[in-house]
Amino acid sequence: MTITIIGTGLIGGSMALALKEKGFADKIIGVDDNIMHQRKALELYLVDEVLSWEDALPLSDLVILAVPVNIAVKLLPLILDLTDKQVLMDVGSTKEELLNVIAYHTNRRRFVGTHPMWGTENSGPASVVRGAFVNRATVICNKEKSDIDAINMVEKVYRALGMRIVYMDAKDHDVHVAYVSHISHIISFALANTVLEKEREEDTIFELASGGFESTVRLAKSDPLMWLHIFIQNRENILDVLNEHISQLRKFKVSLEKGNYVYLQELIENANGIRRILK
Amino acid sequence: MTITIIGTGLIGGSMALALKEKGFADKIIGVDDNIMHQRKALELYLVDEVLSWEDALPLSDLVILAVPVNIAVKLLPLILDLTDKQVLMDVGSTKEELLNVIAYHTNRRRFVGTHPMWGTENSGPASVVRGAFVNRATVICNKEKSDIDAINMVEKVYRALGMRIVYMDAKDHDVHVAYVSHISHIISFALANTVLEKEREEDTIFELASGGFESTVRLAKSDPLMWLHIFIQNRENILDVLNEHISQLRKFKVSLEKGNYVYLQELIENANGIRRILK
Repeated sequence: MTITIIGTGLIGGSMALALKEKGFADKIIGVDDNIMHQRKALELYLVDEVLSWEDALPLSDLVILAVPVNIAVKLLPLILDLTDKQVLMDVGSTKEELLNVIAYHTNRRRFVGTHPMWGTENSGPASVVRGAFVNRATVICNKEKSDIDAINMVEKVYRALGMRIVYMDAKDHDVHVAYVSHISHIISFALANTVLEKEREEDTIFELASGGFESTVRLAKSDPLMWLHIFIQNRENILDVLNEHISQLRKFKVSLEKGNYVYLQELIENANGIRRILK
Repeated sequence: MTITIIGTGLIGGSMALALKEKGFADKIIGVDDNIMHQRKALELYLVDEVLSWEDALPLSDLVILAVPVNIAVKLLPLILDLTDKQVLMDVGSTKEELLNVIAYHTNRRRFVGTHPMWGTENSGPASVVRGAFVNRATVICNKEKSDIDAINMVEKVYRALGMRIVYMDAKDHDVHVAYVSHISHIISFALANTVLEKEREEDTIFELASGGFESTVRLAKSDPLMWLHIFIQNRENILDVLNEHISQLRKFKVSLEKGNYVYLQELIENANGIRRILK
């Protein structure tokens, strides 16, 4: 099978690597606007050749759209215009806007909206990870809007990657990821700013940065433009979660301020409940 | 050399393991109120025998106090009362209150206040980590208040553990750790509460928890009472940082609410600056 991957970055590149190694793809065509990424993807044997998406589409059985979400909403309708028997899928962090954009497109049923729940703070083909995706969840959204053969192929892709498939409505997906992914990034960006603000006064602070700090602030290294557009597309849900999170933080603040340590203990013990859910 | 470790949990136990394996200690005596911890520490060969601290002290060259910070402030003066030539050190997350408590003690100079910047969300002797501490920073506070032989011995301990020693005033230490450790824990506890609040409505949310979420929320699994007392002892500094962090989060909220995406992008790009400091 020939697979075209549009966007040879962390997700597209790691997927290319895995699908080739699993023998799922006979040939992978890479599409990327960034010439440095094109070269790197070829050099790392992530892709067999680089073409424009217009040239790659007719040669492909499957096209994986792995570009930032603001680019996906512009590009997907154009690709669908030229789609015939190919299956198309995306891997973006937001789903509702993208699915709305193509809701009435003639070739809508050739497309499957998905979101594999894996990533790192790094980007670009140089940051690909071997064995990415394994044992993680992936979401397929609004299954009923896609052709059965398209869904079947996408399911095979994710099974080849070793992922657990969850089916979900795009609207629900966007609410959930606001909680389990997007808010973590906002928190991490804000924590980095909190500490960087202080760092103007004090240099040694970073001498001390321990594992706890590093794991909380790691996500603040993530690609700014990619995340900017995720936040914009999922604005309403993120605002809900952010308001809730600020109100949770204020409970810690008030209990500390007032010396209400019984309540502070309750807050911490309640948070410990996350152990029930995340092992 | 005979070393007594009071508190055979994550820090004390991991230290015992390393000091024995490095040949730094000939014998390690464990002290622990918790009988299960005593048994586990013996079973895992972290300690050679278990005694009360009163019995262990006269047999020891070095005593490492590795108990929660609220217990340390009560126990340290009692130990110092009976201290003769032994060297005492602690490993707690807060330093100012502890050093104030013993400021005028006759044997003050036998004690060295320290804080190795390493930990995990787990506690107890069963959670010890082989190779902990290596390449991390450790703080020695108010060096000038301790005897030179005591400082020398503590420096040797940390060099044996492979740590980088930073010297600092206790007051400065407590400000710094509020930024690089304590705030990360509060954020993580608050994030856990944010998500657990939502989970009442939705179960599938945790199906999706990805690496980013797990790393941000990991610290919320930490021992509640241990952290409660760290927060209480470092209350003023933590409140400063928490206020700054909430105000940084509000910048994200306001820019999203108002659709001021130029500013939102600036906030994210500024946060990215953490890459300069944490590789």
